[in-house]
This record gives sequence, C-alpha cells and structure tokens, in this order.
Amino acid sequence: MKKLAALALPLFALSLLPTAARADVVAKAASPDGRITLTISLDNEGRPSYAVQRDGKALIADSRLGFMFTDAPKIERNLTLADTKTDKSDTTWTQPWGEWSSIRDHHNEIRLAFREKSDLQREMDVTFRLFDDGVAFRYTLPDQANLHHANIAEELTQFAFAEGGTAWWKPAFEWNREEYLYNRTPLDAVGTAQTVMTVKLASGTHVALHEAALVDYAGMNLARAQGNTFRAALTPGSGAPKVSRDAGFSTPWRTIAIADDAAGLYMNHMILNLNEPNKLGDVSGWIKPGKFVGVWWNMIKGDWTWARGPKHGATTANVRHYIDFAAANGIPAVLVEGWNVGWDGNWFGNGKDMNFSQPTEDFDADGLAAYAKLKGVTLIGHHETGGSASHYDGQLDSAFQWAADHGERVVKTGYVTDAGQIERVDPDGSQHREWHEGQWMVNHYLRVVQTAAKYKVSIDSHEPVKDTGLRRTYPNWVAREGGRGMEYNAWIGGKNPPEHEANLVFTQILGGPMDFTPGVLSLSGSEGSAIQSTIAKQLALYVVLYSPFVMAADTPENYAKYPGPFQFIKDVPTDWSDTRVLNGEVGDYVTIARKAKGSNDWYLGAIGDEEERSSQVKLDFLDAGRRYTAEIYRDGPGADYRTEARHAIVIEKKAVKKGDALSIDLAPGGGQAIRFVAIGGKTR
Amino acid sequence: MKKLAALALPLFALSLLPTAARADVVAKAASPDGRITLTISLDNEGRPSYAVQRDGKALIADSRLGFMFTDAPKIERNLTLADTKTDKSDTTWTQPWGEWSSIRDHHNEIRLAFREKSDLQREMDVTFRLFDDGVAFRYTLPDQANLHHANIAEELTQFAFAEGGTAWWKPAFEWNREEYLYNRTPLDAVGTAQTVMTVKLASGTHVALHEAALVDYAGMNLARAQGNTFRAALTPGSGAPKVSRDAGFSTPWRTIAIADDAAGLYMNHMILNLNEPNKLGDVSGWIKPGKFVGVWWNMIKGDWTWARGPKHGATTANVRHYIDFAAANGIPAVLVEGWNVGWDGNWFGNGKDMNFSQPTEDFDADGLAAYAKLKGVTLIGHHETGGSASHYDGQLDSAFQWAADHGERVVKTGYVTDAGQIERVDPDGSQHREWHEGQWMVNHYLRVVQTAAKYKVSIDSHEPVKDTGLRRTYPNWVAREGGRGMEYNAWIGGKNPPEHEANLVFTQILGGPMDFTPGVLSLSGSEGSAIQSTIAKQLALYVVLYSPFVMAADTPENYAKYPGPFQFIKDVPTDWSDTRVLNGEVGDYVTIARKAKGSNDWYLGAIGDEEERSSQVKLDFLDAGRRYTAEIYRDGPGADYRTEARHAIVIEKKAVKKGDALSIDLAPGGGQAIRFVAIGGKTR
Repeated sequence: MKKLAALALPLFALSLLPTAARADVVAKAASPDGRITLTISLDNEGRPSYAVQRDGKALIADSRLGFMFTDAPKIERNLTLADTKTDKSDTTWTQPWGEWSSIRDHHNEIRLAFREKSDLQREMDVTFRLFDDGVAFRYTLPDQANLHHANIAEELTQFAFAEGGTAWWKPAFEWNREEYLYNRTPLDAVGTAQTVMTVKLASGTHVALHEAALVDYAGMNLARAQGNTFRAALTPGSGAPKVSRDAGFSTPWRTIAIADDAAGLYMNHMILNLNEPNKLGDVSGWIKPGKFVGVWWNMIKGDWTWARGPKHGATTANVRHYIDFAAANGIPAVLVEGWNVGWDGNWFGNGKDMNFSQPTEDFDADGLAAYAKLKGVTLIGHHETGGSASHYDGQLDSAFQWAADHGERVVKTGYVTDAGQIERVDPDGSQHREWHEGQWMVNHYLRVVQTAAKYKVSIDSHEPVKDTGLRRTYPNWVAREGGRGMEYNAWIGGKNPPEHEANLVFTQILGGPMDFTPGVLSLSGSEGSAIQSTIAKQLALYVVLYSPFVMAADTPENYAKYPGPFQFIKDVPTDWSDTRVLNGEVGDYVTIARKAKGSNDWYLGAIGDEEERSSQVKLDFLDAGRRYTAEIYRDGPGADYRTEARHAIVIEKKAVKKGDALSIDLAPGGGQAIRFVAIGGKTR
Repeated sequence: MKKLAALALPLFALSLLPTAARADVVAKAASPDGRITLTISLDNEGRPSYAVQRDGKALIADSRLGFMFTDAPKIERNLTLADTKTDKSDTTWTQPWGEWSSIRDHHNEIRLAFREKSDLQREMDVTFRLFDDGVAFRYTLPDQANLHHANIAEELTQFAFAEGGTAWWKPAFEWNREEYLYNRTPLDAVGTAQTVMTVKLASGTHVALHEAALVDYAGMNLARAQGNTFRAALTPGSGAPKVSRDAGFSTPWRTIAIADDAAGLYMNHMILNLNEPNKLGDVSGWIKPGKFVGVWWNMIKGDWTWARGPKHGATTANVRHYIDFAAANGIPAVLVEGWNVGWDGNWFGNGKDMNFSQPTEDFDADGLAAYAKLKGVTLIGHHETGGSASHYDGQLDSAFQWAADHGERVVKTGYVTDAGQIERVDPDGSQHREWHEGQWMVNHYLRVVQTAAKYKVSIDSHEPVKDTGLRRTYPNWVAREGGRGMEYNAWIGGKNPPEHEANLVFTQILGGPMDFTPGVLSLSGSEGSAIQSTIAKQLALYVVLYSPFVMAADTPENYAKYPGPFQFIKDVPTDWSDTRVLNGEVGDYVTIARKAKGSNDWYLGAIGDEEERSSQVKLDFLDAGRRYTAEIYRDGPGADYRTEARHAIVIEKKAVKKGDALSIDLAPGGGQAIRFVAIGGKTR
C-alpha cells in the first residue's frame, strides 16, 4: 500500500478517499515548559484533527475528533474554527489522603469552538490542557438550536501514534470485566483495549492513554483501527445511544500522559488535576486511611463459605477472633464478607436475594459492633450485588444507614457478574442488561458513593468502573479492585505470574488506588498451592501498590507463624506526604519510596518479576541532615518463587542517611521492603 | 503470561477465571472426505464451544458460542446438550448465471440443541455443516416460553485460530464503508475486520472467514480479542439491539472456508450452497448477463458532472452517442448516471432531492428508450440515494415501474455517505442514523431487490451490504460494488496499487460478483494521471474479476484508439459454464480459466502485482480432442505500469490443444488475456 501523495480530485471524490487530504494548521499550543506542542488542523472537507509533538518530534499524528449520533448526522465534517480561547493556570492543592500531600496543577489551556458551516450549523468545542507531562482534552456540546439533546452513538476520537512500540493492555468487551493479566504486544498487535493502556514507543518515550473525570458518560476503550491508530470505543449500555444527555455538558477528559520513562508515568498528576475539587468538605473526621484484616482469605481459598452452613465464615465467633487479632496488632479495621442474608443460592450474576441490612442469624451484628468499638476497631461491611444493581439501588439508603449505625466507616461493594450482564430493572418493570462501564452504571457507582457520603461511609468498589481520579472530588471513594488481585493466588491454576504487580503499577494503578489485598505471608492458596512470590515481595507490595485502605489478607493463624515479616505490615502506613519512583520498567521491576504522612519516616518497596535482579538505589529521597535506621526485609539466600525457598527472608538493620546507596537484590519473584526510621531531630 | 494448567478451584471461582476450565467433548462430526473434523465441547460451567481440525491438526481451537441480549441474561453458560441430530446431503443444482453452470452441495450436518439447565431454561440450537472445503454454522433460536422475541446485543461467536499466519483484511467501523485497500498483516495484528477476511496460516493452509445468507440480521465483523482469537462484532443500527427479531429464526451462516492454497479458496461453493434456492423461478427471459458502457468515466474523472449545467454528462446527445457506440460494438447495455432530478446540490450523504422517475429536462428519457430499443440496446438506470434510504424506500415502486417502462433491465443503486450515516426516517417522523450493514439496511437492500424483481429489473448495488450469496435466492441481485473499484484510478493520488485486484479475487470476491468496472484502455484518469496497470491487465480483469454485468468503463473515444485490445472486450462473455483457478497467491498473482456458457471457447486471465512474473500454465482445462486458436493479449516488450510502456501490448495467435503449456509472462503491473477459440468439432 502506498501513501497518497499529490492530490487533485473532484471535491465530491475527496469524500470517498480513505485518507484525509490536505490539512491546514489552524491553532497551536504548548506545555508550560514548551517541550510538548499541540497542533489543530482542519482538512479541506472541514474535518478537525489534533496532533501532539514532543521536543519537535511527532508523537500523536493527525487524529480525528467528533461524534456520531443515533438520531442526527455526525459532527465531523464541514466544520470551521469559530473561536479560540487560551488560558494558563499554576495552582497547588492539598489531598486529604494520597500518595502526595500536595499536588501542583500547572498547565496551558486552549479552547476551540468548531461550528458547522452549513446545514445544522452545530457547535462542538474541544478544550485541550497541556501539562509538562502530557496532554488532555475534552469535548463540550453547548445547548443550541439544533442540539438540545445528544444521543451519542460513538465518539470519533482517534489516537494515531506516530511511531510503533510496545503496549501493555487488557482486552475490552470480553466476557470478564477487568480481571485479566496484561498483554505485552507490539503496539500494532493490540486488539481492543481497556484503559489505562501503556505504551513504550520505539524512541523510548512512554505514553499512557486513559481518561479523567468519567461522570455521566460511558467509559472509553481503545479499538485499534489499523497500524498504530486507535479510536475511542465507548462502552455500550442497554439503550441505543451509548451516551444520552441534554446538551450543555462536557465529556470526560481524554488523557495522554507522556514521560521519558516508566517512572515518569507514575509521577504524573494529570488525572487528579483534571477532576473537580473535593465536594465533600473536610473529611478528616471520618476518612481515616488504614489497614484491615478480614474474614475473606479462608473463603476465597474454599475453606469457608459466604453462604450459611457448617463452614460459614462470617460467624460471630470468627469475627470476634478477627477483631481480637486486629486490636492486638494495631490494625484498625476488620472486613467481613458473607455476613448478610442473600448468599445461600447462586450469587454469581444474581444478587436479588441480598439484603444489606439483615445479618444472618449466626452473625450478631449489634454485639459485634459493640465489641469492635470496645476494642477500638471498626468493621468494614461488604455489599455484594451479584450484578443486580437496581436491586442494590433500592436499598442504598437503608444499607448505608445500617452500616453507619454499626460503626462501619468503609463498605466494600461487589458486582460479580459477567461483562454486560448487570441487571437493571426500571420502575416500569422493564429489564435491561448493562455493562459495568456503560453510562448507566457509571452513574450508579457514583450514586452509591454519593449516598454513602451522606452517612460518612467510604466506598471500596469491587468489579467497579475504572478509576478516573474521582477520589479528588469524592474522597470517600477510597479504593477499587478492577483488576486481578490476590484472589487469583488463592486458586490452583489461577496464580498471578511474578510480573503481574510490575504491570499493574504502570497500567491500571496510573488511574488510582487498587485494593489488591497483599500480605499473604504463608504464600499458599487453596490446598496449599504455592503463590509465585517471596515473602519480602508480599511486604514490598504495601509500599508499591498504593491504596489508602490496605488489607493484611492472610489469616491470624498464618501471621502468627511469621512474626518477623508481620512486623513490617504492622508498621507500614497507608497515607503518604511524598512519593518517589526510583526506577522501573513496565512489567519488569519498580522501586518506590514514600514518606509517611505526619512522620519523618520513609518506606521503600521494590518488586521484580521472574528474573533475579540487582540495582543500586541512591537514598537521595531521605531528608537531608537526618539519620535513619533502615529496617530491611530482603529476600534470603536462595529465595526463589519456584521453590520452598520463597519463604527465605533476611531482616536486618542498617544506619543510613541521605546520599547513601543501598544494593537492592531481588530474587526471582522477589521483592524488598525497607522502613527508614528517622532518629531524633535533624543533625544540622 | 502462563497458561493455566492444573485446575482446582471452588466452583464460583471458575466464573472469575479468564480462561475456560476443563471441557468435555460432547459431539463430533466430519466432512464427507473425513479430512475436516468438528468437536463440540461443554466446559464445567456449561459453556459450549466448537473446534475444527483438518487432517487431525487443530485449525480452530475451542471457540465460544452464544448471545448477549439487551433485556435478558445472555445465553452462554449453564447449558446442557439436550439433543443432537445428524444429516447428510449430496445434491447438484444449476445456476441461471455464474462462474459455474452447476454446483455440487455435498455436506454432513449436525444440529445441536443446547438448553439452559436452570433459571430460564432457554434453548439455543447450533447447526454445523461440514463440507470437504470448509465448515459453516448458524444459530437457531426457537420460539419458546422464555424467549418469544430476541433483542440481540451481540453474538458471542468466537473464531480462535489455532496457529498464527498472515491476514488480508480491511477495517470495520471506520468512516468509509468498504472502500479500503487491503491490509496484509500478521494475523495477530488485525484490528477489527470486515469479512471476507482471508488468512494464510503458518502451516500454509488458507482460511477465509465470511458469512452466508445475511437476511434480517446485522452483518458480522471480526474483532480481534487477543492473539489469534477473533469474536463476532455485529454491525450496529440506530436501535439498542443490533438485531431485534421474533424468536423462531436462524442467523446467517458463519463460514470457515479451508483450502490448501489460495486457488482452493476461490473454488469453494459453500457460500452459494448455504443460501436458499432461487425464489424467482425461471429468470432466463429477463436476466441476461452482458457487458455495458456508460456515461460515467468522464464524470468520475471530473470532466462531466452528474448535476445539470454546461458539463452535464447525461444529456440526450451524449447518451445517444453511447447507444450508438454500444450497438456498433455488440455491447448490449448503456449505463446512465445523473439522468434524474436531485443531483444539483450536495448529494454526498444527502439524497432527499432525488426523484427516481423524473429525468432532467436535457435527458429525453422516452426518446432515448425508444432509440435504444431500436438499436437493440437497453439502458441501465442509476438510483443514487446519497444514503437517504427511507427517501428511496418511498419511491421504490414508482422508480422500478418507471425503469421497466423505459426498458431498463438493470438498475445500479448507490448509497454514498459515510459509515453509520444512512438516513432513516420512520413513519412517525423520527430520525435515525443507520449503518450500511446494520439489520435495518440489510432489510432495505433486500426490499429493493425484491421490489425490483416484481418489475423484472436486476440490481447492481453500490455502497452495498456485503455479498453473502443471496444471488442464488434472488438471481436479480446481479452484482455489487462494496470495495475500491476502478473509480479510484480516476483520481490523482487515489490510484489502486498493482496488487489490489489480486487481493480482491481472494478476499471480497469470495463473497460474490464485484462491479469493478474494468477496461480503461487509455490507462489514464483525471488530468491524464496514469493508472498503475498495463493494457493487457485491463483485459485480463474481464476474466479474473467475475461479474455477470461488466462495464467497458472507458469512453468511446478512447476505445477508438485501441481497436486491437478492444476486440477482446467485445469478445469476452460474462457468463460461464466452468471456472478453474490455475494458480495464485493472495495479493500477488492469479490465473483463471473460464469456459464461455453455450460455447466451446475458453478464456484465460492472468494478473500480477508490481513484480515481473513468469509462469508455465498447462492447458489441461481445454476440452480433450479439440483444437483451439489462442488469441493472446500479452504485455509487450518493456511493458511496465510505472512508465509510458504500460501501453505496450502484443496480440498474437497460436494453435493450441489440451495438454500444451503456455508461458505466461507478466510485466510489473501487468496481465495477460487469452481467448481460446474452439475450431470445429472434436478431433476424436
């Protein structure tokens, strides 16, 4: 196939040609540091496109913009640039909790108003924000004479990478929702991907495509058209338009994070900056990041059951035992799954029997709430909907009232059903099947979070909509699952490979916190099946996989067997004032240092993949002039995820200071965790 | 990523795993010759799958079956095999026109009734037919208590190739409809493809995926999920379900043609065999295959216009001139575009002004009809809808009555608008935007064909739904465009590359006849721009690219300049009793021999790509005991599509007989056409 070169066609014929003809640049913008530039073009049929360059080199080639509708002609051709506005912003804001205490939002903005030259003369605005580490844009469809309501069939947004590379991605529109291992393929071998999709271009530049502030809209997936060109593929709903809204709204931001290396992608704050500020006010009184244990691992392994019966997990006695264990170890919360009525039948894809304020008869809710309070522990409730979202909607207020009445500060929700099988029943009784990331469910998830906020309850969504930074606006949306977590390590034949977490850090978790449930120090799942990790790696995950609420997923009995390593779990906080990614390659390894909030202590986590690895890490992140005792948890001699030596761990202490270097040696499937305990005040 | 090996999971956990667990084979079938085998499996969650083997080697690995609905749970899990029926068939039937006079339909059939074990207990039947050269299957959803109407959100059919290979494909769901050059990529670099998609597997086996008998359903595209696994992606419509039908129907057949080489794919008759027999009865009186010239090339080049004005093409004088030319050269028909009212504005994507029974004032329809009749020529009408399908629907009867009244035996329809931009207006005035291959348009195209049949008019659809063999059932559906034809060669910068036709033969045209409009002997488009072909190749296309109605696309003035080559165009028929593909590689070259229907003459066409090529062709196809004069039209010395020598052609005669060999030498961008004139009776 040859590129079209010279063009001289009758005008109508242009409409038939598969390649856009001549295009004129009609607007330009640049990032604050000038390295990233944006060009907006209109071709001779009035089709707008955008392109992104970095250091003068094409990164995203001319890529289309527009909308298709189910009931009106698309907006894509015949446009003129009616108006251009520019703006600049450099502000800093504070997170109630997070990886960083404060976040700088420094960007240049250009807002373009495109208008159809004839016929319906509709206006479509596109706002671009250029940061030093990426570009984001969103559409606005103003309310106007010929567009009062938008029934969007598809968004015509393209992302045409100007060069090839390697992509890390998981498939969209398959039967499972999000729980896939990541594919690592050439960029031009991607099928249809969920976001975050991370790309290492041939030139070495790293790019992550995602979206920010997904509200009242369908989630965006990336369908590869041809070569290295992708187009937006919105998640369907049960209705004809993928998005149906009154005009006068803006879409979510489409985000293109750009960095020299993988570490740079993680240090990007675009997603948070593009979300609205906190709408919940001061939440310090009711959102308190922390760890939890829970009645769960024994169930996911198949030893206990969610359903009532002889092996029921959530009994009064079992939960008291967990409360005692949490209290004894300074762990502030206990998750309980399977405590309520509704689990006895087949609850996969069917949660219509679930009652979220009726405990089973062997679960003494009032007594346990009182006991937990006495012990200084809170319970984390679990609302499994089985995908019956409307059924849950009908109980939201009563459910969160009940949770608040029983001292629950966090609720974990669940939507376990296949993709596209969410059960929606409208007030008129009509049945619909929805997708987890379709517009209706996007609204449902937020409705749950907003309702929970009324009762000062935080939400940890499982089988969720992807994280697009809404934790900034609703800081009670504290975590999500939305990927393959530790539960797969419970199952024989389902084990996550050693590279999995090094994929997650640079893909899904770029979107926000993941409730991965680390810390299975026994390294064994059902029937004693081996988890592909060392003990030190389990500890490192507490630093590497950020979440404000983090589980110590193993059982009290197992933790009793590993008092040395368990000490790190007891020590590690879940809220940070600063975060630095010291090194990393997507899917291979990563080392992250974080400073505990309200403390001078630092923590370091390093994880690898199936390879043995050594690196020198400079302790430049430590506070200048301060002395530290490094409490090091490292892979022991011969440690290897493939053998019983996965349990080999060395715990040692070392005096260190800023500027020192540490050798970090990772076993196959290994990791390393370090607590840097600040000693006294600064030395100078 | 590692494959799941041993599996021991709690039952609910299976539902969470991305890879199907243990599966048991529950049914088997084989092709008549036993080389192709089929296995049907059910996994331990009751998910059915099919797999195809050839010579005992896996060709399609376990691939899912099922449906998603917009208003009910999907049918995919929890199934049991309730009933199995088998059948055999070996029949031969006759085509009124085609590449072959008679077609053998030899297959084994297995029909499987799957039923849900609990809950809705719905039944889904799948019927497989195994031919010696492929496998086809379709679903049947019987009318039943819990499924009276099916609102299909998506078909869950998978095609999981068991090995990699090379794929030839064009993208689906992009802005253009079908007019793309073919991509040649690794199988695992396909995006979302239209069918026909052709694959040469690493082992050398050739496979073509397509569908047969697309009626009252949405077209099927192929979305690559991961690796070499594809899933059905039905074309959307404006409504929520992609297909909405009362239960008690069967889907189109999903076809997997299998051959040792490219030639074998072309010789496959599955698509026709899977369609219903002729519903129009004896059509010999009104469907008479043949060639045509037309008022077209001067328009597509930009020299004349469809619209009225000083350069209007379809004037009485111009058309008389074409009628004279046709009559003088034994060409039975003349196409006229732009003859009617409605072309004066912007008709791309807007045909609401079109009146299909009102000629423009400078087109004397009655006079020309009489003149054509006098000259023994018929006119081919043109109905350009500009994508305004409902507007056309409203005129169907009057339009075809008008056509019949004016002696038109064939009408060329057009739907020039972007993908997804078909204009549908319901009786209640509601507006909808439809896709060319969505269910509503699939029904529209057939409605046009059925209405035309009432008036004994045949249809050549441009911007059509793809060809799925419905010409068998409705032999008045004589041809389609649906791809990049000669028109692109009119445009500077739009030229088809030399490999294009060798792609078409083994991809799109496996579905059925394409109206490519060959024969531009001047080899020049607008402003004299050069077409990337030799003259001999233009002739060869008449044999290679089968269509019962074939244009001689150049102008009378140009044909006057090439009397020698034009003789072949005058001689070559468009209806055949037999066809043999002598050699070929997808996108590289192909040689086809065809026997003229009702004659002892054979014709041969050979085309290549940009490379120079020589091959020995054994004339084994010629009738035994008969002598022939081969009238050879071959690339002349130094012929080359890149230079003025593209016009070099040698015309020579040679006495040949069955068993002789001919050396076929193709220039870069070249071809060769041969007429084998049978001399007298058989020699023995």
